[in-house]
Amino acid sequence: MAEWTSGKSRSMPLTSTPTSDQEALRLAASDRIAIEGVSPEIDGGRFDVKRVVGDVLAVEADIFCDGHDKIDAVLRYRCEGEGEGEGSGEADWLELPMQFLGNDRWRVELPLTRNARYLYTIVAWRDLYATWCDEAGKKHGAGQAISLELTEARHLIEETITGGRGADADRRGLQSLLKAVDLAKGDAAKLECLTAEPAQQLFARAGQRTNVTGYSKVLAVWVDRKRAAFSAWYEMFPRSQSGDANRHSTFDDVIARLPYVRELGFDVLYFPPIHPIGKTNRKGRNNSLTPTKSDPGSPYAIGSDEGGHDAIHAELGTFAAFERLIKAAKAEGIEIALDFAIQCSPDHPWIKQHPEWFDWRPDGTIKFAENPPKKYEDIVNVHFYGDAFPSIWLALRDIVLFWAEKGVRIFRVDNPHTKPFPFWEWMIREVQDRYADVIFLAEAFTRPAPMKRLAKLGFTQSYTYFTWRNTKQELTEYATELTTTEMREYFRPNFFVNTPDINPPYLQESGRPGFQARLVLAATLAGNYGIYNGVEICEARAIPGKEEYLDSEKYEIVAWDWDRKDNIRADITLINRLRREHAALQQLTNLSFYNFWNDEVLYYGKATADLSDFLLFAVNLDPHNAQGGHFEVPLWEFGLPDSADIGVEDLVAGKRFTWSGKVQHMLLDPADRPYAIWRLWPKESPTT
Amino acid sequence: MAEWTSGKSRSMPLTSTPTSDQEALRLAASDRIAIEGVSPEIDGGRFDVKRVVGDVLAVEADIFCDGHDKIDAVLRYRCEGEGEGEGSGEADWLELPMQFLGNDRWRVELPLTRNARYLYTIVAWRDLYATWCDEAGKKHGAGQAISLELTEARHLIEETITGGRGADADRRGLQSLLKAVDLAKGDAAKLECLTAEPAQQLFARAGQRTNVTGYSKVLAVWVDRKRAAFSAWYEMFPRSQSGDANRHSTFDDVIARLPYVRELGFDVLYFPPIHPIGKTNRKGRNNSLTPTKSDPGSPYAIGSDEGGHDAIHAELGTFAAFERLIKAAKAEGIEIALDFAIQCSPDHPWIKQHPEWFDWRPDGTIKFAENPPKKYEDIVNVHFYGDAFPSIWLALRDIVLFWAEKGVRIFRVDNPHTKPFPFWEWMIREVQDRYADVIFLAEAFTRPAPMKRLAKLGFTQSYTYFTWRNTKQELTEYATELTTTEMREYFRPNFFVNTPDINPPYLQESGRPGFQARLVLAATLAGNYGIYNGVEICEARAIPGKEEYLDSEKYEIVAWDWDRKDNIRADITLINRLRREHAALQQLTNLSFYNFWNDEVLYYGKATADLSDFLLFAVNLDPHNAQGGHFEVPLWEFGLPDSADIGVEDLVAGKRFTWSGKVQHMLLDPADRPYAIWRLWPKESPTT
Repeated sequence: MAEWTSGKSRSMPLTSTPTSDQEALRLAASDRIAIEGVSPEIDGGRFDVKRVVGDVLAVEADIFCDGHDKIDAVLRYRCEGEGEGEGSGEADWLELPMQFLGNDRWRVELPLTRNARYLYTIVAWRDLYATWCDEAGKKHGAGQAISLELTEARHLIEETITGGRGADADRRGLQSLLKAVDLAKGDAAKLECLTAEPAQQLFARAGQRTNVTGYSKVLAVWVDRKRAAFSAWYEMFPRSQSGDANRHSTFDDVIARLPYVRELGFDVLYFPPIHPIGKTNRKGRNNSLTPTKSDPGSPYAIGSDEGGHDAIHAELGTFAAFERLIKAAKAEGIEIALDFAIQCSPDHPWIKQHPEWFDWRPDGTIKFAENPPKKYEDIVNVHFYGDAFPSIWLALRDIVLFWAEKGVRIFRVDNPHTKPFPFWEWMIREVQDRYADVIFLAEAFTRPAPMKRLAKLGFTQSYTYFTWRNTKQELTEYATELTTTEMREYFRPNFFVNTPDINPPYLQESGRPGFQARLVLAATLAGNYGIYNGVEICEARAIPGKEEYLDSEKYEIVAWDWDRKDNIRADITLINRLRREHAALQQLTNLSFYNFWNDEVLYYGKATADLSDFLLFAVNLDPHNAQGGHFEVPLWEFGLPDSADIGVEDLVAGKRFTWSGKVQHMLLDPADRPYAIWRLWPKESPTT
Repeated sequence: MAEWTSGKSRSMPLTSTPTSDQEALRLAASDRIAIEGVSPEIDGGRFDVKRVVGDVLAVEADIFCDGHDKIDAVLRYRCEGEGEGEGSGEADWLELPMQFLGNDRWRVELPLTRNARYLYTIVAWRDLYATWCDEAGKKHGAGQAISLELTEARHLIEETITGGRGADADRRGLQSLLKAVDLAKGDAAKLECLTAEPAQQLFARAGQRTNVTGYSKVLAVWVDRKRAAFSAWYEMFPRSQSGDANRHSTFDDVIARLPYVRELGFDVLYFPPIHPIGKTNRKGRNNSLTPTKSDPGSPYAIGSDEGGHDAIHAELGTFAAFERLIKAAKAEGIEIALDFAIQCSPDHPWIKQHPEWFDWRPDGTIKFAENPPKKYEDIVNVHFYGDAFPSIWLALRDIVLFWAEKGVRIFRVDNPHTKPFPFWEWMIREVQDRYADVIFLAEAFTRPAPMKRLAKLGFTQSYTYFTWRNTKQELTEYATELTTTEMREYFRPNFFVNTPDINPPYLQESGRPGFQARLVLAATLAGNYGIYNGVEICEARAIPGKEEYLDSEKYEIVAWDWDRKDNIRADITLINRLRREHAALQQLTNLSFYNFWNDEVLYYGKATADLSDFLLFAVNLDPHNAQGGHFEVPLWEFGLPDSADIGVEDLVAGKRFTWSGKVQHMLLDPADRPYAIWRLWPKESPTT
């Protein structure tokens, strides 16, 4: 049977079977303080929590002991890799005192400043000094004698001097305390001396910890760089950037397009695979099996005699050109994201080099990818087990490391749910151990359990069901699940409006207002969002009855007209600017839905914790009709009465005005603009 | 830092740090199938789930793999102690196939037939045969050729013959299958042959399991005997059973009282401590510090020169008399429960024998029990750590074993929350390893977290907040928490109406109707309930302003008049009879609250899963006024329309009648009887 295989290096080893009953008893007895209900903790500590640099990790736990004695607790933490190993001891851990919240609940906030894995656990103990203060105080307060208690305090101080945790200065301080108590006249004065702030500080530093109990697990939080939680993606096929459908474009053509992407306001530019494309069973236009000689094929059919996953499709350019592109993008504030798609074309060099990585059939052919009765004739899949293990694991890891070395720090991973889960957990850890700033986006459109699992295993961001959540109820339920359940601890949604594979039925019918609405929803409901090019010009031509784009760019070179009439480039530019300017839009879990009495209008707010940046959004989900109604201004969030006035800034029009009272009315006409965005300025309202 | 100290013997050992990266990889790769969201599982498997003999344990989990391949899963289980140890292998486990529920959820039901600890875990694997059937079937269904698939099937059968799990007969069956496929004419017939029921059964027995993955933890369910979940307790002071306040009664007097207890219908008779009572600082009547020479003292001041926890207070009788009592009680269907109270009187023999077990103060005295400013002068507490460890642990365990040896199988434990948690976990395990039928009731009236912890650690039953839950809202919320949250898996409430320490304010004011109401609530909301004697005669004289009984039996011998006017013995007899006769009343979690439009009337139902025993209760919580109103008959539970007629049996009056329609009306007059109990007979109504 399998062990708990992951997180091994950070788990406290379970002691082997005790050699005697007494040893078992001794072990059992070491657990005097109960530490339970620790939060956050994913699947009993099996998986990391996720945060980004600058976040604070709030850790809570129920911590309690038998009886009435006082206890105390600290969070112990460290960054992984610091002082680790067999010989690592207590000294490698830092401590933060936990605060008692009441009803046995304790809490601490750990500021996360590094792009690294932080380990954390909890240690608690009985605090004899605090117990003494409490009991002696109560007895004295009840008029009882405390002379014996005072003697006991002397013993406690003496023991703390000889056996405590303090430095020399603390021991001298404790000696002085002894003298001060002796000099104090009367029980009250002695008690005061023993319980005063200086004595408390002395014991906090030097006091012995009794029945020290550690939480049974070491938990971890993986701290990404900020872009992991806040990014705007633009997807393009680099071969379609010449403006001429008859000319395969190059990385230099892409460089020429960077200002366009920057002006729209995106910060991640993502390419489908850029590797040599196979020729055997190459797909023609619209996924046909009858390509003409000039058809470029699907870039997902990776590998030809020109090379495989570590090569560049020759028509795109050289490695030098690619590095030029990376540099030019960086200069525009844009990061290049590559596609990591593990399948191979039948011409991939690996097939000859490593036949053991593939599934050979009785007739000597390789099994091509299929999901019966569907077939993907231009690609074959690799094996991960049997003879392919572990060489294929290492080779695939090395592909990612190869591109990371070239400066790529973001990978969109194609269909990770069809490759073994343990591969991803191992590979992502291997890569992030070397390049902590690498971001992996999981393109898994599958059932909830495997999608969540991939996120738990380490994927930085995840594609979502957003594309198929269209109604007010669907959007509210889904966004609520993502932002309020345990998923918020590990699953970072990236709301794509569309992809080369998904031409959403809603957009096929909606026309321009639908594109505006879906753009605003994607960009403001989640911290990460993206579009595949064409959204800005409301492209939605479909193969009838399917979610596929007609004349899909996957199979041909396309020349787009970016200035197409009725484009929504201004909306995109506006929304991306607001995202950059407003801290409230750079988080996931600060989303609240409010009442708008019309089922076609989604109405929600995003605010910073201090409410200094408080934005409201109303989006008309009906692309064909004006929708309006009454809605509630969340005055209560500011502690304002229902009748209050509040300052409002229309972030689209740039105008300021005042709402008087909680219930307001508005109309959203898709012919005009199907969304409204307001910032609330409570301090500017005359009532505050 | 402490390890995860408990459940060691059943945890899979974490493998030590891998010696190479490749070994780490190999280990990681062994985890291909995801097994998560396992239920029930308390605190990540740290604690046992509880059930009783005859229950079925339903285990569910999310189980899924990458890709589209078929998987299968089993529950592996065994009773602890069977085939255990270092050399235990796969053969020691039994398997039950799990059923796929949908959306990656699987389920299995394990019947629990023994009073023992069952271990369980889950094993899953990729099922190559099922995958083949699925893919070949889909392709054939889509009109695609399957000749290659048929060749692959032959290889699969051959591999199963040589490397599968089957017996000789299975191998012969597979050989026959090969021949049958050869003889079958055409792809359709061959496919039919390969996927038919006999082939499926062959592969179920003999099929190879690929990428076998075990759940990372072995979980446990502790299966108690039935009385653990269904018991009716009667508490008496054995010294007060002579009927004469001037004569200390004996065990033989108690024997004479057994028919009374049996007629009331109780099955557990529980005594406060029966050990020699200390003389030093003995308490007088009403907890006074000035006893007269004839005052018997509190039985909780355990130990004198006559002996300690393993001795019997001489005036009660000899061990022979005690054993006579145990036997006589058994003959009446009654079990004797003893009190396990760890504190000692200052005269306890242990103080001289084991001074290291006690907390000596600077003046040479032992610290007596206190909760400043409260003092308990007649008892001192033992230490569990320092020099007292582990000898006191062993001594206390041996006390329980001593009484278990004498035939006592139920212990009510006094104030367990003031003794170390690990002691209880260890001690209960030690005792139940030897006497699996021992029941421990935790008398912890403290904060929720420690009360839950004690139950998780192993206490069979727990005292509750019931005594202080009086209003409809309080009772509904509390009973809902106990029966519907995770607590139901490990916390078995025992609803005591009163105790020698708790004379509930409600009963001090309520008179007879309050006693009737609280009795019915305690006996029907929970499977376990109890009364301290006096409830049957509505005893509620209190020390003014306190929850303490006036002239408490804790400090003096009392002669009760069991025939006191207006007693409720008939009610108790009735309710206990109904509890015995109705399976619906012998469970905890089958409770449902229904609508009664009066906040003074609590209205609820208890039913067996098949609805064959469906009881309704209405209890007037206002002891001073008649309360009535409309209420809903839960016709919907039987799939009946709101207008249906339903047969009803009044279980108090023994009459049968029909309710027509969902909404009915009734009045509960405390002067008459403040409760009603009905059984529903849906089959008898004319509409069904």
